[in-house]
Amino acid sequence: MATAPLDDAVAPPPALPLPKTSRGERTRQRILDAAERDIGRRGFSEASISTITQEAAVAQGTFYLYFRSKEDVMRELVLRMGRRLRRHLTQATAGLKDRLEIEKRGLQAFLSFVRDNPNLYRVVAESQFVDEVAYQRYYHDFANNYRQALSEAEGVGQLSPGDAELRAWALMGISDFIGRRYALWDKDASIEAVTEAAFAFISRGIAPKLPEGKAP
Amino acid sequence: MATAPLDDAVAPPPALPLPKTSRGERTRQRILDAAERDIGRRGFSEASISTITQEAAVAQGTFYLYFRSKEDVMRELVLRMGRRLRRHLTQATAGLKDRLEIEKRGLQAFLSFVRDNPNLYRVVAESQFVDEVAYQRYYHDFANNYRQALSEAEGVGQLSPGDAELRAWALMGISDFIGRRYALWDKDASIEAVTEAAFAFISRGIAPKLPEGKAP
Repeated sequence: MATAPLDDAVAPPPALPLPKTSRGERTRQRILDAAERDIGRRGFSEASISTITQEAAVAQGTFYLYFRSKEDVMRELVLRMGRRLRRHLTQATAGLKDRLEIEKRGLQAFLSFVRDNPNLYRVVAESQFVDEVAYQRYYHDFANNYRQALSEAEGVGQLSPGDAELRAWALMGISDFIGRRYALWDKDASIEAVTEAAFAFISRGIAPKLPEGKAP
Repeated sequence: MATAPLDDAVAPPPALPLPKTSRGERTRQRILDAAERDIGRRGFSEASISTITQEAAVAQGTFYLYFRSKEDVMRELVLRMGRRLRRHLTQATAGLKDRLEIEKRGLQAFLSFVRDNPNLYRVVAESQFVDEVAYQRYYHDFANNYRQALSEAEGVGQLSPGDAELRAWALMGISDFIGRRYALWDKDASIEAVTEAAFAFISRGIAPKLPEGKAP
Protein backbone atom coordinates (compact mmCIF):
# COMPACT_ATOMS: atom_id res chain seq x y z
CA MET A 1 0.00 0.00 0.00
CA ALA A 2 1.24 3.46 -0.85
CA THR A 3 2.13 6.09 1.69
CA ALA A 4 -0.61 8.45 2.83
CA PRO A 5 -0.84 11.89 1.24
CA LEU A 6 1.06 14.20 3.54
CA ASP A 7 2.75 16.14 0.77
CA ASP A 8 -0.07 18.54 0.14
CA ALA A 9 -0.23 19.47 3.84
CA VAL A 10 0.91 22.91 4.89
CA ALA A 11 4.30 22.91 6.60
CA PRO A 12 4.39 24.54 10.05
CA PRO A 13 6.27 27.83 10.35
CA PRO A 14 9.99 27.23 10.85
CA ALA A 15 11.09 27.10 14.49
CA LEU A 16 12.89 30.11 15.94
CA PRO A 17 16.70 29.84 15.83
CA LEU A 18 18.20 27.83 18.70
CA PRO A 19 19.90 29.79 21.50
CA LYS A 20 23.56 30.59 20.92
CA THR A 21 24.71 30.07 24.52
CA SER A 22 24.44 26.96 26.68
CA ARG A 23 22.73 29.06 29.30
CA GLY A 24 20.12 30.07 26.76
CA GLU A 25 19.68 26.43 25.79
CA ARG A 26 19.20 25.47 29.45
CA THR A 27 16.49 28.12 29.79
CA ARG A 28 14.79 26.88 26.64
CA GLN A 29 14.84 23.33 27.94
CA ARG A 30 13.45 24.49 31.29
CA ILE A 31 10.51 26.10 29.49
CA LEU A 32 9.94 22.88 27.53
CA ASP A 33 10.09 20.82 30.73
CA ALA A 34 7.52 23.08 32.35
CA ALA A 35 5.30 22.97 29.25
CA GLU A 36 5.50 19.18 29.19
CA ARG A 37 4.26 19.00 32.79
CA ASP A 38 1.71 21.75 32.44
CA ILE A 39 0.14 20.69 29.12
CA GLY A 40 0.43 17.01 30.05
CA ARG A 41 -1.44 17.48 33.32
CA ARG A 42 -3.96 20.17 32.50
CA GLY A 43 -4.36 19.86 28.78
CA PHE A 44 -3.48 22.29 26.01
CA SER A 45 -6.35 24.72 26.43
CA GLU A 46 -5.96 25.05 30.22
CA ALA A 47 -2.21 25.49 30.09
CA SER A 48 -1.11 29.00 29.13
CA ILE A 49 2.13 30.78 28.42
CA SER A 50 1.67 32.45 31.77
CA THR A 51 1.31 29.16 33.69
CA ILE A 52 4.19 27.63 31.75
CA THR A 53 6.58 30.49 32.48
CA GLN A 54 5.51 30.50 36.13
CA GLU A 55 6.23 26.79 36.39
CA ALA A 56 9.57 27.33 34.64
CA ALA A 57 10.33 30.34 36.89
CA VAL A 58 11.19 32.62 33.96
CA ALA A 59 9.74 35.95 32.94
CA GLN A 60 7.01 35.84 30.35
CA GLY A 61 9.13 37.85 27.94
CA THR A 62 11.80 35.17 28.10
CA PHE A 63 9.35 32.70 26.59
CA TYR A 64 9.21 34.76 23.40
CA LEU A 65 12.96 34.61 22.92
CA TYR A 66 12.54 30.92 22.13
CA PHE A 67 8.95 30.34 21.03
CA ARG A 68 6.30 32.31 19.21
CA SER A 69 3.30 30.61 20.77
CA LYS A 70 1.95 27.73 22.82
CA GLU A 71 1.50 25.85 19.51
CA ASP A 72 5.22 26.29 18.84
CA VAL A 73 6.02 24.69 22.19
CA MET A 74 3.71 21.80 21.52
CA ARG A 75 5.31 21.11 18.14
CA GLU A 76 8.70 21.13 19.83
CA LEU A 77 7.44 18.66 22.45
CA VAL A 78 6.29 16.30 19.69
CA LEU A 79 9.81 16.42 18.28
CA ARG A 80 11.20 15.86 21.79
CA MET A 81 9.04 12.77 22.21
CA GLY A 82 10.26 11.43 18.87
CA ARG A 83 13.93 11.99 19.75
CA ARG A 84 13.68 10.60 23.28
CA LEU A 85 11.66 7.59 22.32
CA ARG A 86 13.94 6.69 19.41
CA ARG A 87 17.01 7.00 21.65
CA HIS A 88 15.33 4.92 24.34
CA LEU A 89 14.37 2.19 21.86
CA THR A 90 17.78 2.21 20.22
CA GLN A 91 19.48 1.74 23.57
CA ALA A 92 17.08 -0.99 24.66
CA THR A 93 17.66 -3.02 21.50
CA ALA A 94 21.36 -2.30 20.97
CA GLY A 95 23.28 -5.33 19.82
CA LEU A 96 20.21 -7.41 19.05
CA LYS A 97 20.13 -8.98 15.61
CA ASP A 98 16.89 -10.94 15.54
CA ARG A 99 13.84 -8.89 14.60
CA LEU A 100 11.43 -10.78 16.85
CA GLU A 101 13.75 -10.20 19.78
CA ILE A 102 13.98 -6.52 18.81
CA GLU A 103 10.18 -6.31 18.68
CA LYS A 104 9.89 -7.80 22.14
CA ARG A 105 12.53 -5.64 23.77
CA GLY A 106 11.27 -2.61 21.90
CA LEU A 107 7.74 -3.14 23.15
CA GLN A 108 8.95 -3.53 26.72
CA ALA A 109 11.04 -0.37 26.38
CA PHE A 110 8.07 1.52 24.94
CA LEU A 111 5.85 0.52 27.85
CA SER A 112 8.46 1.64 30.38
CA PHE A 113 8.85 4.88 28.48
CA VAL A 114 5.12 5.58 28.64
CA ARG A 115 5.00 4.83 32.34
CA ASP A 116 7.97 7.12 32.97
CA ASN A 117 6.79 9.91 30.65
CA PRO A 118 3.01 10.10 31.03
CA ASN A 119 2.90 13.83 30.39
CA LEU A 120 4.96 13.72 27.23
CA TYR A 121 2.78 10.87 25.98
CA ARG A 122 -0.38 12.88 26.60
CA VAL A 123 1.05 15.96 24.92
CA VAL A 124 1.77 14.04 21.73
CA ALA A 125 -1.69 12.47 21.77
CA GLU A 126 -3.29 15.88 22.19
CA SER A 127 -1.16 17.43 19.45
CA GLN A 128 -3.46 15.89 16.84
CA PHE A 129 -6.07 18.46 17.88
CA VAL A 130 -3.66 21.37 17.85
CA ASP A 131 -1.47 20.67 14.82
CA GLU A 132 -2.62 17.57 12.98
CA VAL A 133 0.18 17.91 10.45
CA ALA A 134 2.86 17.72 13.16
CA TYR A 135 1.07 14.74 14.65
CA GLN A 136 0.76 12.92 11.34
CA ARG A 137 4.38 13.68 10.57
CA TYR A 138 5.44 12.17 13.88
CA TYR A 139 3.69 8.89 13.13
CA HIS A 140 4.58 8.79 9.46
CA ASP A 141 8.27 9.33 10.23
CA PHE A 142 8.17 6.61 12.82
CA ALA A 143 6.24 4.28 10.54
CA ASN A 144 8.62 4.84 7.62
CA ASN A 145 11.65 3.74 9.60
CA TYR A 146 9.70 0.89 11.13
CA ARG A 147 8.46 -0.34 7.76
CA GLN A 148 11.96 -0.39 6.39
CA ALA A 149 13.28 -2.40 9.33
CA LEU A 150 10.41 -4.90 9.00
CA SER A 151 11.02 -5.24 5.25
CA GLU A 152 14.68 -5.95 5.79
CA ALA A 153 13.93 -8.55 8.45
CA GLU A 154 11.42 -10.19 6.14
CA GLY A 155 14.07 -10.23 3.41
CA VAL A 156 16.41 -12.31 5.54
CA GLY A 157 13.69 -14.66 6.77
CA GLN A 158 13.36 -13.29 10.30
CA LEU A 159 9.68 -12.52 9.72
CA SER A 160 6.99 -14.22 7.70
CA PRO A 161 6.05 -12.47 4.45
CA GLY A 162 3.56 -9.63 4.89
CA ASP A 163 2.69 -6.00 4.21
CA ALA A 164 5.45 -4.13 6.07
CA GLU A 165 3.71 -0.77 5.99
CA LEU A 166 0.51 -2.17 7.42
CA ARG A 167 2.43 -4.17 10.00
CA ALA A 168 4.25 -1.06 11.14
CA TRP A 169 0.95 0.73 11.79
CA ALA A 170 -0.63 -2.32 13.40
CA LEU A 171 2.36 -2.71 15.72
CA MET A 172 2.30 0.98 16.63
CA GLY A 173 -1.42 0.62 17.38
CA ILE A 174 -0.79 -2.34 19.67
CA SER A 175 1.94 -0.45 21.53
CA ASP A 176 -0.24 2.60 21.83
CA PHE A 177 -3.33 0.88 23.24
CA ILE A 178 -1.43 -1.58 25.42
CA GLY A 179 0.66 1.33 26.66
CA ARG A 180 -2.40 3.36 27.49
CA ARG A 181 -4.21 0.52 29.22
CA TYR A 182 -1.33 -1.11 31.13
CA ALA A 183 1.34 1.57 31.51
CA LEU A 184 -0.45 4.93 31.56
CA TRP A 185 -3.82 4.21 33.24
CA ASP A 186 -2.81 1.19 35.27
CA LYS A 187 0.33 2.01 37.21
CA ASP A 188 0.61 -1.44 38.80
CA ALA A 189 0.51 -3.84 35.86
CA SER A 190 3.73 -5.78 35.35
CA ILE A 191 5.44 -4.47 32.23
CA GLU A 192 7.22 -7.80 31.84
CA ALA A 193 4.02 -9.86 31.97
CA VAL A 194 2.26 -7.51 29.56
CA THR A 195 5.21 -7.68 27.17
CA GLU A 196 5.18 -11.50 27.21
CA ALA A 197 1.46 -11.66 26.46
CA ALA A 198 1.62 -8.99 23.76
CA PHE A 199 4.62 -10.60 22.15
CA ALA A 200 2.82 -13.94 21.98
CA PHE A 201 0.04 -12.19 20.08
CA ILE A 202 2.41 -10.28 17.81
CA SER A 203 4.49 -13.28 16.88
CA ARG A 204 1.80 -15.94 16.43
CA GLY A 205 -1.56 -14.15 16.14
CA ILE A 206 -4.81 -15.55 17.46
CA ALA A 207 -5.64 -18.32 14.98
CA PRO A 208 -5.73 -21.82 16.44
CA LYS A 209 -2.83 -24.10 15.63
CA LEU A 210 -3.20 -25.54 12.17
CA PRO A 211 -4.02 -29.22 11.86
CA GLU A 212 -0.97 -31.17 10.72
CA GLY A 213 -0.23 -31.19 7.04
CA LYS A 214 -2.24 -28.03 6.36
CA ALA A 215 -0.42 -25.03 4.98
CA PRO A 216 -1.08 -21.63 6.62
CA MET B 1 -4.25 -9.41 34.07
CA ALA B 2 -6.74 -7.58 36.26
CA THR B 3 -9.00 -4.81 35.04
CA ALA B 4 -7.72 -1.26 35.26
CA PRO B 5 -8.79 0.87 38.22
CA LEU B 6 -11.75 2.85 36.98
CA ASP B 7 -13.87 2.38 40.05
CA ASP B 8 -12.33 5.18 42.03
CA ALA B 9 -12.91 7.61 39.16
CA VAL B 10 -15.48 10.33 39.63
CA ALA B 11 -18.72 9.67 37.73
CA PRO B 12 -19.85 12.46 35.37
CA PRO B 13 -22.96 14.41 36.37
CA PRO B 14 -26.13 12.57 35.28
CA ALA B 15 -27.44 13.60 31.87
CA LEU B 16 -30.49 15.84 31.70
CA PRO B 17 -33.79 13.97 31.28
CA LEU B 18 -34.58 13.00 27.69
CA PRO B 19 -37.22 15.06 25.85
CA LYS B 20 -40.80 13.86 26.34
CA THR B 21 -41.97 14.55 22.77
CA SER B 22 -40.65 13.17 19.53
CA ARG B 23 -40.29 16.73 18.29
CA GLY B 24 -38.06 17.49 21.29
CA GLU B 25 -36.03 14.39 20.58
CA ARG B 26 -35.57 15.45 16.97
CA THR B 27 -34.32 18.84 18.11
CA ARG B 28 -31.93 17.21 20.56
CA GLN B 29 -30.59 14.95 17.81
CA ARG B 30 -30.20 17.95 15.49
CA ILE B 31 -28.06 19.67 18.11
CA LEU B 32 -25.97 16.52 18.50
CA ASP B 33 -25.55 16.24 14.71
CA ALA B 34 -24.37 19.84 14.55
CA ALA B 35 -22.02 19.33 17.49
CA GLU B 36 -20.56 16.24 15.86
CA ARG B 37 -19.76 18.21 12.71
CA ASP B 38 -18.59 21.32 14.49
CA ILE B 39 -16.38 19.69 17.15
CA GLY B 40 -15.17 17.07 14.67
CA ARG B 41 -14.05 19.68 12.15
CA ARG B 42 -12.84 22.53 14.33
CA GLY B 43 -11.96 20.80 17.57
CA PHE B 44 -13.51 21.13 21.01
CA SER B 45 -12.00 24.45 22.00
CA GLU B 46 -12.88 26.22 18.73
CA ALA B 47 -16.43 24.92 18.66
CA SER B 48 -18.82 26.77 20.95
CA ILE B 49 -22.43 26.49 22.02
CA SER B 50 -23.07 29.48 19.81
CA THR B 51 -21.53 27.90 16.69
CA ILE B 52 -23.26 24.60 17.43
CA THR B 53 -26.71 26.15 17.80
CA GLN B 54 -26.14 28.25 14.66
CA GLU B 55 -25.21 25.11 12.72
CA ALA B 56 -28.27 23.34 14.16
CA ALA B 57 -30.47 26.36 13.41
CA VAL B 58 -31.91 26.49 16.92
CA ALA B 59 -31.95 29.31 19.47
CA GLN B 60 -29.14 29.25 22.01
CA GLY B 61 -31.68 28.88 24.84
CA THR B 62 -32.95 25.66 23.22
CA PHE B 63 -29.52 24.12 23.75
CA TYR B 64 -29.93 24.39 27.51
CA LEU B 65 -33.19 22.44 27.46
CA TYR B 66 -31.15 19.37 26.60
CA PHE B 67 -27.57 19.96 27.70
CA ARG B 68 -25.84 21.85 30.47
CA SER B 69 -22.60 22.49 28.63
CA LYS B 70 -20.36 21.70 25.69
CA GLU B 71 -18.81 18.94 27.85
CA ASP B 72 -22.27 17.40 28.24
CA VAL B 73 -22.66 17.27 24.48
CA MET B 74 -19.27 15.68 24.04
CA ARG B 75 -20.06 12.96 26.57
CA GLU B 76 -23.29 12.27 24.71
CA LEU B 77 -21.37 12.02 21.43
CA VAL B 78 -19.04 9.44 22.96
CA LEU B 79 -22.10 7.38 23.90
CA ARG B 80 -23.49 7.90 20.40
CA MET B 81 -20.26 6.59 18.87
CA GLY B 82 -20.44 3.54 21.14
CA ARG B 83 -24.06 2.79 20.22
CA ARG B 84 -23.63 3.36 16.49
CA LEU B 85 -20.42 1.43 16.22
CA ARG B 86 -21.79 -1.55 18.18
CA ARG B 87 -24.90 -1.62 16.00
CA HIS B 88 -22.79 -1.36 12.86
CA LEU B 89 -20.50 -4.19 13.96
CA THR B 90 -23.39 -6.38 15.07
CA GLN B 91 -25.08 -5.99 11.69
CA ALA B 92 -21.86 -6.63 9.79
CA THR B 93 -21.19 -9.87 11.65
CA ALA B 94 -24.77 -11.13 12.06
CA GLY B 95 -25.08 -14.85 11.55
CA LEU B 96 -21.34 -15.51 11.63
CA LYS B 97 -20.24 -18.25 14.00
CA ASP B 98 -16.49 -18.44 13.56
CA ARG B 99 -14.52 -15.93 15.63
CA LEU B 100 -11.79 -15.39 13.04
CA GLU B 101 -14.42 -14.64 10.45
CA ILE B 102 -16.10 -12.26 12.90
CA GLU B 103 -12.77 -10.52 13.51
CA LYS B 104 -12.22 -10.05 9.81
CA ARG B 105 -15.70 -8.77 9.01
CA GLY B 106 -15.67 -6.65 12.14
CA LEU B 107 -12.41 -5.01 11.17
CA GLN B 108 -13.70 -4.25 7.70
CA ALA B 109 -16.90 -2.80 9.16
CA PHE B 110 -14.89 -0.69 11.59
CA LEU B 111 -12.76 0.75 8.79
CA SER B 112 -15.86 1.64 6.75
CA PHE B 113 -17.39 3.20 9.83
CA VAL B 114 -14.35 5.42 10.39
CA ARG B 115 -14.30 6.51 6.77
CA ASP B 116 -18.03 7.33 6.89
CA ASN B 117 -17.93 9.01 10.33
CA PRO B 118 -14.65 10.95 10.47
CA ASN B 119 -16.08 13.66 12.70
CA LEU B 120 -17.54 11.29 15.25
CA TYR B 121 -14.23 9.43 15.36
CA ARG B 122 -12.32 12.65 16.01
CA VAL B 123 -14.74 13.72 18.71
CA VAL B 124 -14.24 10.49 20.63
CA ALA B 125 -10.47 10.74 20.28
CA GLU B 126 -10.52 14.31 21.57
CA SER B 127 -12.82 13.42 24.47
CA GLN B 128 -9.81 12.02 26.36
CA PHE B 129 -8.67 15.63 26.84
CA VAL B 130 -12.08 16.88 27.89
CA ASP B 131 -13.41 14.07 30.07
CA GLU B 132 -10.86 11.31 30.46
CA VAL B 133 -13.25 9.24 32.57
CA ALA B 134 -15.87 9.15 29.78
CA TYR B 135 -13.14 8.21 27.32
CA GLN B 136 -11.74 5.45 29.51
CA ARG B 137 -15.23 4.16 30.15
CA TYR B 138 -15.89 3.98 26.42
CA TYR B 139 -12.84 1.83 25.83
CA HIS B 140 -13.22 -0.27 28.98
CA ASP B 141 -16.84 -1.09 28.13
CA PHE B 142 -15.88 -2.04 24.62
CA ALA B 143 -12.90 -4.05 25.85
CA ASN B 144 -14.97 -5.93 28.44
CA ASN B 145 -17.42 -7.22 25.87
CA TYR B 146 -14.62 -7.95 23.47
CA ARG B 147 -12.63 -9.89 26.06
CA GLN B 148 -15.60 -12.02 26.89
CA ALA B 149 -16.23 -12.87 23.24
CA LEU B 150 -12.57 -13.77 22.75
CA SER B 151 -12.57 -15.96 25.86
CA GLU B 152 -15.61 -17.86 24.70
CA ALA B 153 -14.10 -18.38 21.25
CA GLU B 154 -10.91 -19.63 22.86
CA GLY B 155 -12.98 -22.00 24.99
CA VAL B 156 -14.41 -23.72 21.92
CA GLY B 157 -11.10 -23.86 20.09
CA GLN B 158 -11.76 -21.08 17.58
CA LEU B 159 -8.73 -19.16 18.81
CA SER B 160 -5.38 -20.24 20.15
CA PRO B 161 -4.95 -19.88 23.93
CA GLY B 162 -3.96 -16.39 25.04
CA ASP B 163 -4.65 -13.46 27.34
CA ALA B 164 -8.12 -12.34 26.20
CA GLU B 165 -7.98 -8.97 27.94
CA LEU B 166 -4.68 -8.07 26.38
CA ARG B 167 -5.79 -9.35 23.00
CA ALA B 168 -8.89 -7.17 23.16
CA TRP B 169 -6.76 -4.06 23.73
CA ALA B 170 -4.22 -5.07 21.10
CA LEU B 171 -6.97 -5.64 18.55
CA MET B 172 -8.58 -2.30 19.37
CA GLY B 173 -5.18 -0.66 18.94
CA ILE B 174 -4.71 -2.26 15.54
CA SER B 175 -8.16 -1.11 14.41
CA ASP B 176 -7.55 2.37 15.73
CA PHE B 177 -4.19 2.93 14.03
CA ILE B 178 -5.07 1.14 10.81
CA GLY B 179 -8.32 3.10 10.77
CA ARG B 180 -6.53 6.38 11.25
CA ARG B 181 -3.89 5.67 8.65
CA TYR B 182 -5.95 4.00 5.91
CA ALA B 183 -9.55 5.14 6.47
CA LEU B 184 -9.37 8.57 8.08
CA TRP B 185 -6.23 10.18 6.64
CA ASP B 186 -6.04 8.26 3.38
CA LYS B 187 -9.41 8.41 1.68
CA ASP B 188 -8.34 6.28 -1.28
CA ALA B 189 -6.93 3.13 0.30
CA SER B 190 -8.94 0.00 -0.44
CA ILE B 191 -10.72 -1.06 2.73
CA GLU B 192 -10.85 -4.63 1.43
CA ALA B 193 -7.12 -4.84 0.75
CA VAL B 194 -6.28 -3.29 4.11
CA THR B 195 -8.61 -5.75 5.85
CA GLU B 196 -6.95 -8.71 4.14
CA ALA B 197 -3.47 -7.58 5.13
CA ALA B 198 -4.46 -6.74 8.70
CA PHE B 199 -6.31 -10.00 9.11
CA ALA B 200 -3.25 -11.94 7.99
CA PHE B 201 -1.30 -10.21 10.74
CA ILE B 202 -4.00 -10.72 13.35
CA SER B 203 -4.48 -14.37 12.65
CA ARG B 204 -0.89 -15.52 12.16
CA GLY B 205 1.38 -12.81 13.56
CA ILE B 206 4.76 -11.94 12.11
CA ALA B 207 6.94 -14.86 13.19
CA PRO B 208 8.38 -16.95 10.37
CA LYS B 209 6.84 -20.37 9.83
CA LEU B 210 8.16 -22.84 12.35
CA PRO B 211 10.47 -25.55 11.10
CA GLU B 212 8.65 -28.89 10.95
CA GLY B 213 8.35 -30.83 14.15
CA LYS B 214 8.83 -27.77 16.38
CA ALA B 215 5.99 -26.76 18.67
CA PRO B 216 5.00 -23.07 18.76
